[in-house]
Amino acid sequence: MGATMRNIRLTIEYDGTNYAGWQVQANGLTVQQVIEEALARVLGMPTRLYSSGRTDAGVHAKGMVAAFRTDRDIPLSAFSDGLNTLLPPDIAVRGAAEATAEFDPRRDAKGKHYCYTILNAERRSPLQRLYAWHLRESLDLGAMREGARQMVGERDFAAFRTTGCAAQSTVRNVFSVDVERKGEFILIDVKGSGFLRNMVRIMVGTLVEIGRGKTPASAVSGFFNGKNGATAGMTAPAHGLCLVEVYY
Amino acid sequence: MGATMRNIRLTIEYDGTNYAGWQVQANGLTVQQVIEEALARVLGMPTRLYSSGRTDAGVHAKGMVAAFRTDRDIPLSAFSDGLNTLLPPDIAVRGAAEATAEFDPRRDAKGKHYCYTILNAERRSPLQRLYAWHLRESLDLGAMREGARQMVGERDFAAFRTTGCAAQSTVRNVFSVDVERKGEFILIDVKGSGFLRNMVRIMVGTLVEIGRGKTPASAVSGFFNGKNGATAGMTAPAHGLCLVEVYY
Repeated sequence: MGATMRNIRLTIEYDGTNYAGWQVQANGLTVQQVIEEALARVLGMPTRLYSSGRTDAGVHAKGMVAAFRTDRDIPLSAFSDGLNTLLPPDIAVRGAAEATAEFDPRRDAKGKHYCYTILNAERRSPLQRLYAWHLRESLDLGAMREGARQMVGERDFAAFRTTGCAAQSTVRNVFSVDVERKGEFILIDVKGSGFLRNMVRIMVGTLVEIGRGKTPASAVSGFFNGKNGATAGMTAPAHGLCLVEVYY
Repeated sequence: MGATMRNIRLTIEYDGTNYAGWQVQANGLTVQQVIEEALARVLGMPTRLYSSGRTDAGVHAKGMVAAFRTDRDIPLSAFSDGLNTLLPPDIAVRGAAEATAEFDPRRDAKGKHYCYTILNAERRSPLQRLYAWHLRESLDLGAMREGARQMVGERDFAAFRTTGCAAQSTVRNVFSVDVERKGEFILIDVKGSGFLRNMVRIMVGTLVEIGRGKTPASAVSGFFNGKNGATAGMTAPAHGLCLVEVYY
């Protein structure tokens, strides 16, 4: 009788500043690669980590979800506290759990919550430099909220993706887009079924252009006409973005 | 007739991670040194910066106050935006103002507000690694608050300073010590007329020992007997501490 195959689910937090994104690639160190190397040391063999999706270079995560299969009979804590002793300070496992054999972090994800942080202040902030996009000018929050409302729903987000995005369907369901001022920060919380490549950052960039008065909030509906080649707005920088949670 | 001497007051934010504290010293780069070098480039001459006090290596600041004198007739923005273009990303001037000729950041300070951040969670947090002290164990917040109450008032804080502290009088007036839980964080806000070297970090270390049940909250009053050599508790690590504001 063979050993039982386990499917282990990890919740992972990382500071994306020093990484070329989540997914293993040819150029630059990625978060996935660093965790897979630590995991190989714990398990004694190369092991592939499957995630809920990728994040761009420089994007942070509080709640990335990934899973791997193993038949090794070692305690779950080896995949949380054990792995954490091998991981660098800017990556950590925040939780580990046994999942069902069928659990697939990407396919089973019901939605994701991203938060984008803008530092809306006259001068830059050393303590927020890695986690917030600094914008000096005053932004019209009312207009941004109106634009945000128009981004909610099941729509064709073709205008909100980078040219490198290979997704076949560009229809996504955005559950909510909340724009909130908190002291000198503006927080933009985006929840949806899934996102195209750079989609959240282009949504934020578009909302900022609306806040600056460069684009009227009413223009947002025009970005959902599904015509190829139309682009909504600029892409907000990666370092303000954080993947907060993946819903299952 | 000579040029008018100006006294310029700066409010400075910095991430203390990569510095050997505020004050210029023989070993290691300090925040003061970096700002004085940038200031010398703006003013065209070496210029001494006088601060409200020092911070230890690794301690952060949102609102350090410092001042310098100059007879150069250049706009105030040269000392905020201008200086910021010369300063590294982890140091910035958040505000610059003309002060009275008599203004002395140290002598005139009426009080200071420090905030200490504890990450009270089972596992470490990559996004908070530079700004919060990670403690896994559950802490008795009620006991910590009781200990905190006993630290308030004008008292002899001789037991709450490092051996390297050269202050002549060890009497200080602590206005308030507030212990608050916020999600997975415990925030300890300390306000007082002034502080001995390492005093806030030893207050926090003592409160943590109380929270762990190692020291009874009732023991705090015994630390104020003024006897030399008595020490209250351990010194909490520098990176959890931030100088929030200096009151004038």
